Amino acid sequence: MKFGGTSMAGTERIRRVARIVKRQQDAGHEVAVVVSAMAGETDRLVNFCREANPLYDPAEYDVVVASGEQVTSGLLAIALQALGANARSWLGWQLPIRTVEAHAKARIDSIDADALIAEMQKGVIAVIPGFQGVSEAGRVTTLGRGGSDTSAVAVAAAVKADRCDIYTDVDGVYTTDPRIVAKARKLANVTYEEMLELASVGAKVLQTRSVGLAMKEGVRVQVLSSFIDDDAPAADTIPGTMIVSDEELEGMDMERQLITGIAHDKNEAKITLTRVPDKPGAVANIFGPLAEAAINVDMIIQNVGRDKGETDVTFTVPAADLARSMDLLEQAKESIGFNRIIPDTNVAKISVVGVGMKSHAGVASTMFKALADRGVNIQAISTSEIKVSVLIEEDYTELAVRVLHTAYGLDAVEA
Amino acid sequence: MKFGGTSMAGTERIRRVARIVKRQQDAGHEVAVVVSAMAGETDRLVNFCREANPLYDPAEYDVVVASGEQVTSGLLAIALQALGANARSWLGWQLPIRTVEAHAKARIDSIDADALIAEMQKGVIAVIPGFQGVSEAGRVTTLGRGGSDTSAVAVAAAVKADRCDIYTDVDGVYTTDPRIVAKARKLANVTYEEMLELASVGAKVLQTRSVGLAMKEGVRVQVLSSFIDDDAPAADTIPGTMIVSDEELEGMDMERQLITGIAHDKNEAKITLTRVPDKPGAVANIFGPLAEAAINVDMIIQNVGRDKGETDVTFTVPAADLARSMDLLEQAKESIGFNRIIPDTNVAKISVVGVGMKSHAGVASTMFKALADRGVNIQAISTSEIKVSVLIEEDYTELAVRVLHTAYGLDAVEA
Repeated sequence: MKFGGTSMAGTERIRRVARIVKRQQDAGHEVAVVVSAMAGETDRLVNFCREANPLYDPAEYDVVVASGEQVTSGLLAIALQALGANARSWLGWQLPIRTVEAHAKARIDSIDADALIAEMQKGVIAVIPGFQGVSEAGRVTTLGRGGSDTSAVAVAAAVKADRCDIYTDVDGVYTTDPRIVAKARKLANVTYEEMLELASVGAKVLQTRSVGLAMKEGVRVQVLSSFIDDDAPAADTIPGTMIVSDEELEGMDMERQLITGIAHDKNEAKITLTRVPDKPGAVANIFGPLAEAAINVDMIIQNVGRDKGETDVTFTVPAADLARSMDLLEQAKESIGFNRIIPDTNVAKISVVGVGMKSHAGVASTMFKALADRGVNIQAISTSEIKVSVLIEEDYTELAVRVLHTAYGLDAVEA
Repeated sequence: MKFGGTSMAGTERIRRVARIVKRQQDAGHEVAVVVSAMAGETDRLVNFCREANPLYDPAEYDVVVASGEQVTSGLLAIALQALGANARSWLGWQLPIRTVEAHAKARIDSIDADALIAEMQKGVIAVIPGFQGVSEAGRVTTLGRGGSDTSAVAVAAAVKADRCDIYTDVDGVYTTDPRIVAKARKLANVTYEEMLELASVGAKVLQTRSVGLAMKEGVRVQVLSSFIDDDAPAADTIPGTMIVSDEELEGMDMERQLITGIAHDKNEAKITLTRVPDKPGAVANIFGPLAEAAINVDMIIQNVGRDKGETDVTFTVPAADLARSMDLLEQAKESIGFNRIIPDTNVAKISVVGVGMKSHAGVASTMFKALADRGVNIQAISTSEIKVSVLIEEDYTELAVRVLHTAYGLDAVEA
């Protein structure tokens, strides 16, 4: 079980979480719980570091910020004991949760879960701080913001859990953002790949890394609401969204729709380079410096050639990397040989996601027709095995999501 | 160097502490720094524990409260790096600082300082959280409130430091409380024994345990103000109070006064049991139950026998233990055989302290005469090798301290 910062914000809520956890044990389960820091606490600690030195040492930053989850781990163990449960905390260095040395953005290498499993089998509820680990050198590390989901999946894999229940402030994964489409439906099941596409393109429920890890380790992840009634039955019977493999999905959901969901992402920026020489190697000159700077280029369109062997090249980068991208391109202006850079942040990416897509070629044409019928202009396209994405003008985002949600038959039937 | 919670309260102050520390290194010293949590933080964390469960597990309490010093350690390392210093934090479990298993009130067993010394010799400033350690079982422990002074002395002993500078919110140890006696003088030197008596009877500058440890380990401790100008020279030249052994004192301060200081303590309570049988074993029946409950009985007076082989017995206990003491005595009423219990919290203990006393018998009589001259009635007396204490009515506390301060020639000469 994993609980986020909102669920852990203050002792009243922590005692509520304890009741939810205890009920799982009472239902016959062996339970480990991964917790986030109290909402706002990590920001407070990060600000301290920045105030102490804007160019802070990430190794010491980790010492400071890891304390937030240490506090909530101890408090949840205390609150569980208050309910008569046998509970104790294991900090990252105590298990240990071994990570690579990369401070402030570490990856988990391995978790030694022997002691944990032995204690859980004796009926002890294990409470583990998310987000933190220990390096080979024996120093505190953290996984980067939002890393507690990844900690939970890693612990679930290490103890070979039947299920990893992630309690969030939504009650599952929806076909699209319910704030945009009132008729959005909660999905009973979604595959890892679909979840990755839905998460990375805007349906932020789980941290992307945690889904990738769950896929790799074969951990069944359930997303469910932490705002359930704390007198409700154990989570086995609460309908969240189960994230599973393709194979498991086939066995459990024969009636599944072709398309699983519609995602949107307003955090992209479009860059157009005009009058780039239309010759081999030109593209490498553009994208080489961006790749070196670890800037993720998504959609690319090379326009049909102009006169004089020149062409315009358009592509998207994360909006947060726009300024840095522009700088890098200006520096490479001579080697690339373009005329002008035209940035545009007034764009959104709309994605249609579904594992069924693999065997259905008509998905893309349905998308293009539905958008064209409502006058939405498509500026760029990218596809993957289970996704078709288009770039459109940002103002059309909500319209496009609604149109596509209806076009693929995802709208809930009115009661 | 050790800095308390007031000095560490917020990043602005932590950066100030960093400047003070850096100047020690610049003056040619190898430096380790022990820090407290930000002022108020430990209280906040303790309250969380209490809210989670009033009968909290001390092992989990330690996990929660130790985080306060973890945060300030990381932040001070960051702030030192901002000044161009080479600095890093070592948490209690990292050194490790090994303690006994007694959670929330652990004692330090040993500190493995090899890595620390090696790094300090390379010019690294070591930052170490006070108050925390790790048990044999590998769990976080804490030393009890105020334990950071003890951590500092223990680290100083482990690295064989020339000096342990404890920065406090006073600038040294005074002949008495300067809020009571305007002419109180700062002492240049004081012995461990004197400091123990001055601390335990009310002049709260250092935690008593830390002084005891310093005496045992022969650590030279300097008390000085953390509110010095942070452009001031290194601490070698700032006049604080140096706490040293008898032997070292003899070499450094030939002109020393007979009496070092006057302390007072309003946290005592007096209990009188009337009509106790005046026979062997009666006293054991009274103090046995109190000793078993670890209640510290200080002054004892057995009044001259009444008629019928009965006597009144008067003694003092810490005011905080008064109610518990009364309960225990009521339970033992039959075996003791007293008539009534008369409690009295309207008392204060005044102590005259000085190592010179060992060879001067007139000290006590000077004290009694000076108090009698001003009409202060003495209710009880206790003595040790370097101390004479009297119990008086609480309202006379300030008068008695002033009278004795003058009587022993401790008043500063007017400028």
